[in-house]
Parts: sequence; C-alpha cells; structure tokens
Amino acid sequence: MLGIIRVITLPDQRDADLHGELIRRRYGLEVTSACIEDQQEGVFDNRTEELAIPKIVLLAGELEKRGCRAIGISCAADPALAECRQAVNVPVLGAGSCAAHLGLASVDKLGVLTILEETPPLISSILGEAYVGMERPEGVVTTLDLRTEAGREASFRSAVKLAERGAEGIVLACTGFATIGFAEELERRLGLRAFDPIYSLGAAAAVCL
Amino acid sequence: MLGIIRVITLPDQRDADLHGELIRRRYGLEVTSACIEDQQEGVFDNRTEELAIPKIVLLAGELEKRGCRAIGISCAADPALAECRQAVNVPVLGAGSCAAHLGLASVDKLGVLTILEETPPLISSILGEAYVGMERPEGVVTTLDLRTEAGREASFRSAVKLAERGAEGIVLACTGFATIGFAEELERRLGLRAFDPIYSLGAAAAVCL
Repeated sequence: MLGIIRVITLPDQRDADLHGELIRRRYGLEVTSACIEDQQEGVFDNRTEELAIPKIVLLAGELEKRGCRAIGISCAADPALAECRQAVNVPVLGAGSCAAHLGLASVDKLGVLTILEETPPLISSILGEAYVGMERPEGVVTTLDLRTEAGREASFRSAVKLAERGAEGIVLACTGFATIGFAEELERRLGLRAFDPIYSLGAAAAVCL
Repeated sequence: MLGIIRVITLPDQRDADLHGELIRRRYGLEVTSACIEDQQEGVFDNRTEELAIPKIVLLAGELEKRGCRAIGISCAADPALAECRQAVNVPVLGAGSCAAHLGLASVDKLGVLTILEETPPLISSILGEAYVGMERPEGVVTTLDLRTEAGREASFRSAVKLAERGAEGIVLACTGFATIGFAEELERRLGLRAFDPIYSLGAAAAVCL
C-alpha cells in the first residue's frame, strides 16, 4: 500500500483522497491518504513549510505503522522529504522530485511550469544541465487559479514559451495540474510530453510496490 | 503504444515479446516489440554495441512510423539511446537509465548489480553521489546464468554486500533480472527495494502514455 501525505488540512476525506485516487486508477495501486493538521491553507511559503515539516514526518511514521510500503508527499516542493527519509524505513517519494526524475528518464531538455516565483530548488538541482528554465502562468497564483479557463490558457501559453526555449518535455511543478488533466492537454494540443507530479509519484511507487 | 527494441536477434516472436509482456501485465500499456537483425548473441562488448547502434536507430524510426508514442531500448547499457533521441520525435527510454532515475526518485543511496565487469557508465553518471558501488555475482557472466539456482543465490549474496556498503536500494543492471523476478525476491528476503530495468522502463512509459 502507498501512503499519500496531503500537506494541507482538508476536512472532507473525499478531497483528501483525490490525488491517491488518480494514482489508484492509473496504476492499480492500493492507496491511503492522510492530511497534516491545522493548516487549512497548506504550504505556500517558508513559514508554512517549517510549520508543516514535523507534521509531515509524524504522518509518515503513522502511515508506515499502518503498513504502507512506500510514502508519497503530495506536493511539488517536496517538503520534509529528507526528514521523512531519516524517520522511516520505507522509500519516501516527493511528487516534485519524482516528476523531475521521470522527465530525465524520457528526454534531455526540460522546462518547468510552476505557480511559485521560482522552480522548487530540489527540482532544478535534479534537472541540472537538462533544465532550460521555468515559466509561471500569467495570473496564476494559487492552485485554484488553474481550474479557471483563463488559468488553463495561461498555463498553455507558458508551456509554448518553454518549448520555444528548447524544452522537449515539461515538468509540471504543481499538483493542481493533475486535477485539471493538464499533461494530457499538452500532449494533445502541443505534442509535448509533460511530467505530472502526481502521476510521476504513482509511477515511482508502481515500480517497487 | 510503447515500442520495445530488443538488442538481440530472437527468431521466436514469443521470446521477443517477453519484456514487453511484463510491462503490459504490470502497467496495462499496449506494447509492440522488435528485434535488431543478425545479432544472435546480442550486445555484450564494444564491437557488438557499435554493430548494433545503426540497427537500433533504424528500428526506432520504424516503430515511430508504426505509431509508437514512446520507444524503449530493452538493455541496461542503453545502447544507442542518444542516437535514437536524435533520430525520432517521441521520447526514447533506456532500461538502465530508467532504473537509475527511478531508484533516485525513491532512495538516497543505491548499489548496482551487474553481470558486466563495470557498471554501465550512463547508470553511474546518473547516480552520481548516490552511487555506493557495484557487485557482479560470482560465476554469473551471461544473462542465462541468472536462471540457475547458483546464479540466483550468487546475485542474492551480492545484493547483501551492497546493503552492507550502505545501499538503501539496488539498481538491477541486467534485463535478465526481470525474467527471474529478482526485484520481488530482494524485497521479500532482504526488505530492500530493487529497481528492475524492464519495470522501470515501463513505469517511465506509463507516466506519459
């Protein structure tokens, strides 16, 4: 079983289960999901990341005890990845680093689409010389903006810019892209491979579960 | 559809399909397989690799024309990976590099099991600082040796040595390990994650097909 840690407090278990459900459907893995406590707005800056780290580590331990044979942190910034790997004895996967590694397995030049001001540092360090740069879609500041038609089109324009800069594939550095099925849209409209963080995490889990 | 290139001439299509069949069963992907011509002994040294490169590139082009949306080179040494990426417009996956990337997505320290004298250079360069070293199972020289009880036990002892050297996971740098289900055996007997090249290639394909 794969344990998914949501780095946001979601009162409705169906919302909490959403990312795990995408993984279950595509790869047929058994998945259980849990949310960190008391962070209704999730992780979006240094302060909220620091607050979240011990909570993520605690959940990783609990999921290991509940029999999870791999733990996934469902956030493209991979908060607490190193700390969780210290704390538990099963592989810990970060959605962002999985997308970067899966991208490198497929193509040589990768651009990053993010809703943050910068590419998460772990992603750019993994990509190394394959990194051609990042784009932040105009007007997209939170994951909810991706669900609007304007946010979706702005994301598409950003991907086109990355392709023009030489990207052969796009690392989608926000788990909100999974919710809107953006990787498939890029493939269909632009013929460009996109590496979704949730599906990448699922693929990395599928290879050893 | 994923196109699998076998870097050995196999007269029986059922043998040629074997690796693709493992991928189809685990990930539910549609797969077609093709063998290079006139290399009954496959690729096992510099000369046979050089002979094979243009044949692999040719097959990659043919598989792309037949509608494959990703191409996989089914050999842990990833022969002709760079050349194929130049030649076709779909992602090209190498079994060895996929296993290395998937290993890095899961754990921080990786050992390599190989039947060659050295770790394939692409695998060690991808692993970088995560690489703790390699082992070649005693008495195992060809992929067929892995199918004997002695070969299997020698492989197991080599994996134990890598774990003692700090490996948290093992990159299986021979596609013959898939045939004998060795990744599952390591997990069961040693509690250690192993990254099989065929299943890793399949996972990398599954994320974008």
